Amino acid sequence: MYGLIGTWAMAQAGVAAGAQALAAGQSAGRALVTGIQAVEQEPTFGSVGYGGLPNAAGVVELDAAYMNGDNFQLGAVGGVQDVASPIELAKQLAHERVNNFLVGAGAAAYADEHQLARRPMLTAAAAAAWRAKRAAAANGKRLTPYDGHDTVGMVALDAAGHMRAGTSTSGLFMKHPGRVGDSPLPGAGYYVDSEIGGVVATGLGEDMMKAPLSFATVAAMGRGLSPQAALDSVVYPFIAKLRTRNGAVGEFSYIALDAQGHFGAASNVAFQFWVQTATTALTEYLVTPQPSGRAELRRAKEA
Amino acid sequence: MYGLIGTWAMAQAGVAAGAQALAAGQSAGRALVTGIQAVEQEPTFGSVGYGGLPNAAGVVELDAAYMNGDNFQLGAVGGVQDVASPIELAKQLAHERVNNFLVGAGAAAYADEHQLARRPMLTAAAAAAWRAKRAAAANGKRLTPYDGHDTVGMVALDAAGHMRAGTSTSGLFMKHPGRVGDSPLPGAGYYVDSEIGGVVATGLGEDMMKAPLSFATVAAMGRGLSPQAALDSVVYPFIAKLRTRNGAVGEFSYIALDAQGHFGAASNVAFQFWVQTATTALTEYLVTPQPSGRAELRRAKEA
Repeated sequence: MYGLIGTWAMAQAGVAAGAQALAAGQSAGRALVTGIQAVEQEPTFGSVGYGGLPNAAGVVELDAAYMNGDNFQLGAVGGVQDVASPIELAKQLAHERVNNFLVGAGAAAYADEHQLARRPMLTAAAAAAWRAKRAAAANGKRLTPYDGHDTVGMVALDAAGHMRAGTSTSGLFMKHPGRVGDSPLPGAGYYVDSEIGGVVATGLGEDMMKAPLSFATVAAMGRGLSPQAALDSVVYPFIAKLRTRNGAVGEFSYIALDAQGHFGAASNVAFQFWVQTATTALTEYLVTPQPSGRAELRRAKEA
Repeated sequence: MYGLIGTWAMAQAGVAAGAQALAAGQSAGRALVTGIQAVEQEPTFGSVGYGGLPNAAGVVELDAAYMNGDNFQLGAVGGVQDVASPIELAKQLAHERVNNFLVGAGAAAYADEHQLARRPMLTAAAAAAWRAKRAAAANGKRLTPYDGHDTVGMVALDAAGHMRAGTSTSGLFMKHPGRVGDSPLPGAGYYVDSEIGGVVATGLGEDMMKAPLSFATVAAMGRGLSPQAALDSVVYPFIAKLRTRNGAVGEFSYIALDAQGHFGAASNVAFQFWVQTATTALTEYLVTPQPSGRAELRRAKEA
């Protein structure tokens, strides 16, 4: 079996390229990086990598993580500037025994120490969006750092049974400088155990970090639940609990892939993901919240 | 009931002061900050706050977090410089709807925006320790960023049933600039639910972030286990799994306090904690690993 699953419609080309690599016998790690880099490098996606929308100071700050499901080694970066591929940086960090989670200038210094490519990540279009938002704020519109926070997250399974998970995002548009979301946080933004399966998340990081639901879902799969049943048993009860205990609840979306190539999704907002496995052609799924609170999955189209 | 529990022998004065506040009817949040600040402000403790040991570049970078167990709001900072009280900064951030987890220069900027005290956190003694370590490295001794990583973590329960958890540390001595450990990571370094209980961690962050065991322990307490039984069921199996899957295993130490004032601890190294509750006088416990792999708790002394 092999499989690759990725968040949002923007994952299409990346899931296609990564799954092609898996079908050709490449490793889960290689396929995951191929898949996420396809999203990072596309400047029209305003929430990931090159072309990502900047923070309140007009600076693009990037978060990413990479996790090895065989040995639980992980690498993560928060608030790093002008690194061409945050997922490549996170993967490199996953080899470190210590100092595997780096933030800010220290993370950029590590990229230089390891000859990873640097690049100005602010595009003219993203800078224009920032100027427009700042002008609106100057005219009395309140700045709500809440747009364009779609993270690309993927889980990969290769034919040898290795699993990897990864995330990459520029975070909230107009965020406070230095803001980190759930994407680099293990257990919250991602988790993977090659003997069980993996989960990645996208949504409002501030709320999704209030409980490590990616880890909890993998644990539930480890108790024998399918990816869909595990997500259903973990995600919706916590959303209900958070509503009771804290009032407001932001966007929560998760996808899961298990070691047998089964997959599922849970979300409290309209959401899409792309998946391809040895037995499922490249397909987009639409995830639509229902009055019950749970979401319905429906095939949108095959590519 | 009220209670306060804190990691390491260095927590003595902080737990005493915080528990006195709780006994006088003050809130869990106030007691927690009182307790952790007592450790942060003592320069002879080389791993927390003022006097904390610097990174490889000779700069003190601090991690901290604060979590509200009523509503799961949390604040966290990673790699922040020259903030007089990292726990105060984390507590302030826990009030934010977004931008609650800040790193590096952005976290320091937030402290300035909120008029929180700034202070050079590098003491002469810590600078001397750094120069000695650097000289040893120049003489061929390999630099292992592994000393002085003791985090102060506390869980507080007040008479009204509110619970709070918090952590504060300067992280690994000689760490890479920008390195973040488990202490600011929700679910890994800390977790608290006022209806159940709270857990905080100290040890090798790089390994402890490989699974959010503080969250998993709170979840186990939520299924009816005592703090000790919950820790035993969560911590030691993961240590064994990590040894099987990744070989080396760093230091893992956890303490837990539940909403009824019961407490427990788990550790794979010799470890101490201080605790006081409405029914337990201020007491130090020694936690000693046994041949079974589990640890034995023994009262060291009453203060």
